[in-house]
Amino acid sequence: MTAILLTGVGKRYDIVSAFAQHATVVAADPNPLAPAQYAAHHRVAVPLIKDPEYIPALRALCDEHGVGAVVPLTDLDIEVLAQARADGRLPEALVPSPETAAATYDKYEAHLLLQRLGLPSPPTVLPGEEPPSYPVMVKPRRGSGADAIHPARDAEEAAFFCRYIADKDPMVQRLMDGPEFSMDCLSDTEGRCLNVIPRSMLESRGGESIKGTVLDDAELVELGRTVVEALGVRGPCTVQAFRDREIGLGITDVNTRFGGAFPAPAYAARPGRTYPELIVRMASGERI
Amino acid sequence: MTAILLTGVGKRYDIVSAFAQHATVVAADPNPLAPAQYAAHHRVAVPLIKDPEYIPALRALCDEHGVGAVVPLTDLDIEVLAQARADGRLPEALVPSPETAAATYDKYEAHLLLQRLGLPSPPTVLPGEEPPSYPVMVKPRRGSGADAIHPARDAEEAAFFCRYIADKDPMVQRLMDGPEFSMDCLSDTEGRCLNVIPRSMLESRGGESIKGTVLDDAELVELGRTVVEALGVRGPCTVQAFRDREIGLGITDVNTRFGGAFPAPAYAARPGRTYPELIVRMASGERI
Repeated sequence: MTAILLTGVGKRYDIVSAFAQHATVVAADPNPLAPAQYAAHHRVAVPLIKDPEYIPALRALCDEHGVGAVVPLTDLDIEVLAQARADGRLPEALVPSPETAAATYDKYEAHLLLQRLGLPSPPTVLPGEEPPSYPVMVKPRRGSGADAIHPARDAEEAAFFCRYIADKDPMVQRLMDGPEFSMDCLSDTEGRCLNVIPRSMLESRGGESIKGTVLDDAELVELGRTVVEALGVRGPCTVQAFRDREIGLGITDVNTRFGGAFPAPAYAARPGRTYPELIVRMASGERI
Repeated sequence: MTAILLTGVGKRYDIVSAFAQHATVVAADPNPLAPAQYAAHHRVAVPLIKDPEYIPALRALCDEHGVGAVVPLTDLDIEVLAQARADGRLPEALVPSPETAAATYDKYEAHLLLQRLGLPSPPTVLPGEEPPSYPVMVKPRRGSGADAIHPARDAEEAAFFCRYIADKDPMVQRLMDGPEFSMDCLSDTEGRCLNVIPRSMLESRGGESIKGTVLDDAELVELGRTVVEALGVRGPCTVQAFRDREIGLGITDVNTRFGGAFPAPAYAARPGRTYPELIVRMASGERI
């Protein structure tokens, strides 16, 4: 049976248990209190991501268990995995190029990249630059969850928050006023988009969706496909966007991993084509 | 079989299902998407709390199902239930007096009340008054979860945040620097404290504990007991406190309902004496 190595499993019990129905699952997390590890067949406390022994430890797990795909469940190790994939130490890692990993981890770099690719990104500036309009959101370039995100109604509030979170490297982005959407995308190992499932965000906690509805919206499907193919994503990717009443769709985040609302890719896909199933088939060498 | 009416069930599936093991449970929530209702025997969409028909609707449910205790799972209707209990419309409500309900819903009133009772509360002032030291937390007097809570390092930051959340009626409280604890307390219908379970807060999300450990700490047990008996609490109450390195224990919140970490009162109590079991026995008229 093909094995899947899931890293940074944290509290994502639903994802680990979904994979465990289709493959042998090895769960890795430096934190021995990570709840999601208990849904896996094998639980391993690995070195911290910044430790030079992190990738060798994953390498050894791949060899020991015959792992066909390494899937990160957190943002924190995607760049390290992308580097290890690129230089041949961890070819099983289902992650994009180091350049895409770095650009999508930094929301300001992501904004520049989306602009270069002609994809819609809300007006975004760095502290000291004047945004085209207010209100804005002041947020860390490399934030996760809803950490340190502050709406600012005017220039004085924006300037205050840029000072207040100066240690977190802030950026200033138009506060998008329309409804928020996510697109749960899956690409194969060659960067071909296999599916896009758009959903609405009805309620969120800590930046992650906890209530929403899967949508039949061709514009969002097309936007998701365009983004992941332009960025050369491999594996799962969640693209977040708002549909602003004035400026239309704008992409506010690209996470090259499963998003907060895992039920969509697990349950809204066609039978036999849930994302864990497709990833397990990819891991066994099949072309989807 | 005794019936229990749980109000504002929201996402608190674990609490509803724990009660459902010991009694017929009626779950009430104005929101038809409330996930926790599905753990109950009876699900009812009731009027909004501010609607004059709210209490009559609960009254009708009590009569229809033979309800012995009404237990609110959110902060939002405790004052309304306390008033209805006090004037005889809903004697089944397991809530404190209207005065205690009002004072604990407003964190500044709670501070004044704790001070009057000689109980430890961190230094707290209103906007415009100078706190004895910095850093402080600027937070809404009637906030819930971690909504609109802002740490401020100095007077300038504190003044900014008082203006920023002026529409939320802010207060300014010493930022307690020590570890955070919660005490899950249970009192009977006469205000007698039945049990106190202290626990540490290792990790929280949206202001609610998601990781912690139950503690054997006599000082915290005594503090919890003193608080709920001084306030005349009925039913569950969660007392939050920090143990500051300089000023020692300080109570930062008193919620006369189950706290975020329900596993403690459900699993850390002695066999047969979990809080849902004790409440079901109270509801059937037993003196514990």
